[in-house]
Amino acid sequence: MTIEAICTPPEAAEIEARRQKAQAEMAAQGLDALVLFNPDNVFYMTNFANFVHERPFLLVVPAKGDPIFIMPGLEEPHVISRAVGALEFAPYREFPAPEGEGWDAKLTSVLAGMSKLGVEPDCPFFVINALGGRHQSCEIVEDLRLIKSPWEINRHQYACEMMQLGMGELLNHVKPGVLAMSLYGMASGKMTQKMYADLPSANIFSTKLQAGAQPQAISHDPHNFTDLFIPFEIGGPNVALAAGKTNGYGGELERTFFLGHVPDEAKRPFEVMMEARELAFSLTKPGAIMHDVDLAVNNLLRKAGYGDNLLHRTGHGLGVTAHEAPFLAEGDHREIKPGMVYTIEPGIYIPGIGGFRHSDTVVVTETGNHNMTPWPDSIDELTLPV
Amino acid sequence: MTIEAICTPPEAAEIEARRQKAQAEMAAQGLDALVLFNPDNVFYMTNFANFVHERPFLLVVPAKGDPIFIMPGLEEPHVISRAVGALEFAPYREFPAPEGEGWDAKLTSVLAGMSKLGVEPDCPFFVINALGGRHQSCEIVEDLRLIKSPWEINRHQYACEMMQLGMGELLNHVKPGVLAMSLYGMASGKMTQKMYADLPSANIFSTKLQAGAQPQAISHDPHNFTDLFIPFEIGGPNVALAAGKTNGYGGELERTFFLGHVPDEAKRPFEVMMEARELAFSLTKPGAIMHDVDLAVNNLLRKAGYGDNLLHRTGHGLGVTAHEAPFLAEGDHREIKPGMVYTIEPGIYIPGIGGFRHSDTVVVTETGNHNMTPWPDSIDELTLPV
Repeated sequence: MTIEAICTPPEAAEIEARRQKAQAEMAAQGLDALVLFNPDNVFYMTNFANFVHERPFLLVVPAKGDPIFIMPGLEEPHVISRAVGALEFAPYREFPAPEGEGWDAKLTSVLAGMSKLGVEPDCPFFVINALGGRHQSCEIVEDLRLIKSPWEINRHQYACEMMQLGMGELLNHVKPGVLAMSLYGMASGKMTQKMYADLPSANIFSTKLQAGAQPQAISHDPHNFTDLFIPFEIGGPNVALAAGKTNGYGGELERTFFLGHVPDEAKRPFEVMMEARELAFSLTKPGAIMHDVDLAVNNLLRKAGYGDNLLHRTGHGLGVTAHEAPFLAEGDHREIKPGMVYTIEPGIYIPGIGGFRHSDTVVVTETGNHNMTPWPDSIDELTLPV
Repeated sequence: MTIEAICTPPEAAEIEARRQKAQAEMAAQGLDALVLFNPDNVFYMTNFANFVHERPFLLVVPAKGDPIFIMPGLEEPHVISRAVGALEFAPYREFPAPEGEGWDAKLTSVLAGMSKLGVEPDCPFFVINALGGRHQSCEIVEDLRLIKSPWEINRHQYACEMMQLGMGELLNHVKPGVLAMSLYGMASGKMTQKMYADLPSANIFSTKLQAGAQPQAISHDPHNFTDLFIPFEIGGPNVALAAGKTNGYGGELERTFFLGHVPDEAKRPFEVMMEARELAFSLTKPGAIMHDVDLAVNNLLRKAGYGDNLLHRTGHGLGVTAHEAPFLAEGDHREIKPGMVYTIEPGIYIPGIGGFRHSDTVVVTETGNHNMTPWPDSIDELTLPV
């Protein structure tokens, strides 16, 4: 597998291929149109990124022909400047708009004569209510997003190299006494600067680069960022995180590290975490079931005595977001296929001792997998001099 | 009206008062429970902020008693560290979870025996589908959020002072040749540093402080941030923006400014914009209708010959977001009431000449309104020496 890091927007052919696949599946399901509201799905199908707010953006993909984009008139030049691939425009008057001039009137008009409409699982109730009972849940775009094209894998590669840049900054600058806050600002700033230096037109609506680290005192609680003014101390485990999106594509890299030395009580959990990780890598190959991989990893951790120290699944997908399906998790019965991109990150969390987690972004190949974040990961490499 | 800038989280009494009001309205509507998914509504009712992702957070507010928070088990310590007011916890096993152990099983159990459930207008389809047809659309929390408590107004005051800090940074540092990108980084960084210096425990999930400026070349297109590397030049109009959330409460301040001198073709649009703004301030008082204010402002702009240069409404509400109801817009037939907080920002956009918009955050008082962003706004003050 040859992978080349790129960060530029897609060519029209990339977007058109997605639309053709969606329309083929719509034909199979007998749908007259797909009504897309989820901004990540809209981005995937158009390269146009927006924040969800009260002004709806609705992409209607008909059974044949170009998609119609219902959007605030205010945003038309913005859409033109970013969208890739053929589109029809259906701008509506400023929200909420007088009766008959708003988004709902446009939608009614665009969908006239259609009787079977696919909507996303997370379609908002107010959109459903505008469809007159013609809707049915469908995951056509969500399913397309599960398998990345070669171009998308190149985009993830860039994101992963950016995460390695951020991780390098974190590990080079963390010392006893340094505050999590200052590390965060420095590393995130460096990544963001690099992104815009590489691509001045990178889209700020689909770019978010963050790198930070949790000191030992809170590393047992992986979403605890309540105190950014805790200084790092000798020992560990501390957990460094670099994650986010680079002009529309996600990456993630996390490492457990120590300052000066590894406390005795941290040695075994680190080793077991590494064994669980190796197991997950070895099981990640086409034909395996996501559920089975997580179950095997969890069983290894449980047998080692850490059944009460598990907080999350083995991994989650990435794509045009940094967190999406598929899930390397008990309960996700999807088959692993080439082109899937997801994290491998089994973790052990022990209050009073700390958190143990490495996270890598991995792409499934024809025969196994390729780690896109191959950072030095051994306990020796991650025990930093002070 | 005495307003004091504060940025600390609410006391339990503030949150409890919201719940009591919601439950009183639920009783009036005969609802057994409210099922809240929208993260801004959840934050408003709990002080817990989260990103929406695949792991649902659902707050069930029963007709009587404490709300029940259905959330990923992983997040329980995080919820405990942030939530304010009494709550029952219903953590579920890591998403998607084996059959019977996920969020949907918890929801079914919490809602057992209930027959009439209120859901938000933007409730996702997959949540609706888990309710067995017992749902009806209801805007109880959305309606509560329209009127700010004295405590909330104090929170907005802090946000607005932060926006003034950012605006000061922008206007002090912008010069011919400076890039939009470097201004953005500097001003946003200064605001963010101040936030965490004032309140080290400020919540990064509900804090986003951004200040930047559009050079004349793109200021006619208000959401155009496609090129952050355009240098500012002598003349204008340029538009400076400071907006975002400070530990959960929003503010917005925007100003049209010039470098060195005001080009002749920019003088009349600036004056007309200022007249439209004065009209909007004069009409903003209890008892007026939002629609009527926008219509009057738009008519003034149309009569002045700028009917083809209008892209947006006169204003939008702020609260626990930086963009929410009510809307000072044609089509919003709500009555203006004391305690509403919204922007006043009529704009004129002329391709080739530029954009003209001041935006202020305003609170409606018993007798009129109070401008929370009273920055110097005249053309003389905003024509900066070069």
